[in-house]
Amino acid sequence: LASKLPEIGTTIFTVMSKLALEHKSINLGQGFPDFNPDQKLLTLVTDAMNAGHNQYPYMPGVEPLRQVIADKVSALYGKQYDKDSEITVTSGATEAIMAAVTAVVHTGDEVIVIEPCYDSYVPAIRLAGGIPVRVSMRPPETLDETFEIDWNKVSDAITPRTRMIILNFPHNPTGAVLKQDDLDALEQIVTNTNILLLSDEVYEHIIFAPQGHISLASRDSLAERSFVISSFGKTTHTTGWKVGYCCAPANLTAELRKVHQFMVFTVPSPFQYALAQYTGNPETYRKLPEFYRAKRDRLQQGLLNTKFRPLDCPGTFFLLADYSEISDMNESDFSIWLTKEHGVTVIPVAAFYGDPLSDSSNHKIVRFCFAKQDATLDRAVDQLMSL
Amino acid sequence: LASKLPEIGTTIFTVMSKLALEHKSINLGQGFPDFNPDQKLLTLVTDAMNAGHNQYPYMPGVEPLRQVIADKVSALYGKQYDKDSEITVTSGATEAIMAAVTAVVHTGDEVIVIEPCYDSYVPAIRLAGGIPVRVSMRPPETLDETFEIDWNKVSDAITPRTRMIILNFPHNPTGAVLKQDDLDALEQIVTNTNILLLSDEVYEHIIFAPQGHISLASRDSLAERSFVISSFGKTTHTTGWKVGYCCAPANLTAELRKVHQFMVFTVPSPFQYALAQYTGNPETYRKLPEFYRAKRDRLQQGLLNTKFRPLDCPGTFFLLADYSEISDMNESDFSIWLTKEHGVTVIPVAAFYGDPLSDSSNHKIVRFCFAKQDATLDRAVDQLMSL
Ligand SMILES: CSCCC(=O)C(=O)O
Ligand SMILES: CSCCC(=O)C(=O)O
Repeated sequence: LASKLPEIGTTIFTVMSKLALEHKSINLGQGFPDFNPDQKLLTLVTDAMNAGHNQYPYMPGVEPLRQVIADKVSALYGKQYDKDSEITVTSGATEAIMAAVTAVVHTGDEVIVIEPCYDSYVPAIRLAGGIPVRVSMRPPETLDETFEIDWNKVSDAITPRTRMIILNFPHNPTGAVLKQDDLDALEQIVTNTNILLLSDEVYEHIIFAPQGHISLASRDSLAERSFVISSFGKTTHTTGWKVGYCCAPANLTAELRKVHQFMVFTVPSPFQYALAQYTGNPETYRKLPEFYRAKRDRLQQGLLNTKFRPLDCPGTFFLLADYSEISDMNESDFSIWLTKEHGVTVIPVAAFYGDPLSDSSNHKIVRFCFAKQDATLDRAVDQLMSL
Repeated sequence: LASKLPEIGTTIFTVMSKLALEHKSINLGQGFPDFNPDQKLLTLVTDAMNAGHNQYPYMPGVEPLRQVIADKVSALYGKQYDKDSEITVTSGATEAIMAAVTAVVHTGDEVIVIEPCYDSYVPAIRLAGGIPVRVSMRPPETLDETFEIDWNKVSDAITPRTRMIILNFPHNPTGAVLKQDDLDALEQIVTNTNILLLSDEVYEHIIFAPQGHISLASRDSLAERSFVISSFGKTTHTTGWKVGYCCAPANLTAELRKVHQFMVFTVPSPFQYALAQYTGNPETYRKLPEFYRAKRDRLQQGLLNTKFRPLDCPGTFFLLADYSEISDMNESDFSIWLTKEHGVTVIPVAAFYGDPLSDSSNHKIVRFCFAKQDATLDRAVDQLMSL
């Protein structure tokens, strides 16, 4: 049996979560909260089930949820998507990414990804017959910096076969965020080309930078060629419900839906109705930056009392930290050792690179998830103090 | 923007459900119950959410659910799958089908589908770069027969490039079921080849034939090369929850999971825990044949009082009926007309063929879904009496 993804094993997030479980380690690896969503939201799911919303909902997503998404994107980013022809509810951002790439990437098309990057992009491209083209971010030179996108390198990577650029800001794993300058640079690169954009914005509401999130939806010249993808998982503490969405111009949405309808057909109705009602109130996401800033600061301060050196974190619920004062193991070995010997699980940044041992990942940095109860963060820091 | 699925529009089920809604028509089209699942099952979902099962579950599915699946398949079909390496919980059978096809069909591989067939198979094959090879079932000659698979035709369709055969019994839309003879014929075709099988068995528990369901899992020589796919949607009246699964040997499961983890990553945890507890009791599916037999008989009897001529229905919750005494419109036009003018929505069998106007669909048959309350079925029949 010839594998279509010969180089792919089990995703790093599953591998590390399993290892954490086996070693009873504190899991600051995979990105999910260790606390429950708002009880009100759970009650709304129960209400939806009791109201009879247990059969196939409308394939592109139920009307009230598409309406709430349209309203939110319009209020925050000034872009009015048509809920009927431009918004699709998906099985998490993951399915939106896979469906979008599958829908528009043809055999031999090149797709640019910015490394380090989330581990689903490259397999999605490969399965569609496309060729991933990796552009590395500039690693930080000092510890109060973070990784930065180098637009000259992106520009250099463009060829006549470039079909798409995949972006992800606030950026997993580095926490980097977009500025208006970045949109300017991107605009210059894609103007007068047929290049499409896929913007994974699942951390849009977890952002500490004063300018807030800058969505690709906010600039028409970019939005007209973009799949703008987000998720309710990170925003409502329900990563296990797998409800995401994609906003895209009608011609792109039409192609996305052709794939979506045969990939999963639709997304569970009880969650859709509950999330529509719950996130219709903008307070649900307005409170998030403050909520997560406190956790970020708690972990950052805590790590300053250890030999880890935390980096800057302008967005996401992930904090990078340099461990070069502790060990010269590579990032993967260090992460496994940390779980086994010190009971704290993190994710090696190397796992976000195509070649984990390449120069581009030649740093000693791991990713901590701080979407955890304060007590969990404190216990983890305590255990790291002994290092 | 060049479409990768140029010939594909919106799935017929969504098209007809939307039309039904617009015309306030009784929807016997898309296959879903118009009644709620057991209240006990809904309560179990609420319990799971309250117990904190709202974050990413284990990627291949939660342990108790994979255990229940393993136990059921073992009890019913005598095949012991390993829950850790051979069973994967998926976003409905739809995702299992797409993931399996994506995982093993390479560019230029031929995949045999038996027409009429469910409308996701061919797009899944095409997106994987494969070539669908259509083999028509033999249409019934008299009204107490149904469609039958012609194994000689299947055998004739085999070439050195045949990678997979996709089967679906109990069969949507015809209700045909497998006999041991069919497994013999299939065994003869695939023995000493590398041909894989995909068996969509989502109607396994809705079967009226005395021999019960004959799963491909029940014969080792077939199971060793098969993705055996099923779903909880049809079995627990929860089509809108999108929980399905795939049983396959470890080498096939490994490839399936590589795709699954990047297609949807995982399946909502509250449903998984609730379904594990609920379907752990075999009574939940043992009662189904009786339950649906009464509805089938009710609709069949009802249609005998109209100008429709119902066919035999040994399985599924779909009943075919010939309308040639009513109209000589083609099946698609007739179905639209029936919704608009007579307030009953059905599915044209032509929609299950690659070329809806080809000879192979040159019959006048539509599909009724009888997964409806008795009152709904009665109202529909009443309206059809005027024809
Ligand atoms: C789908 S598991 C990965 C969760 C996540 O977004 C991360 O940890 O980066
Ligand atoms: C996924 S919508 C189709 C439901 C169904 O199985 C059918 O109506 O055939």
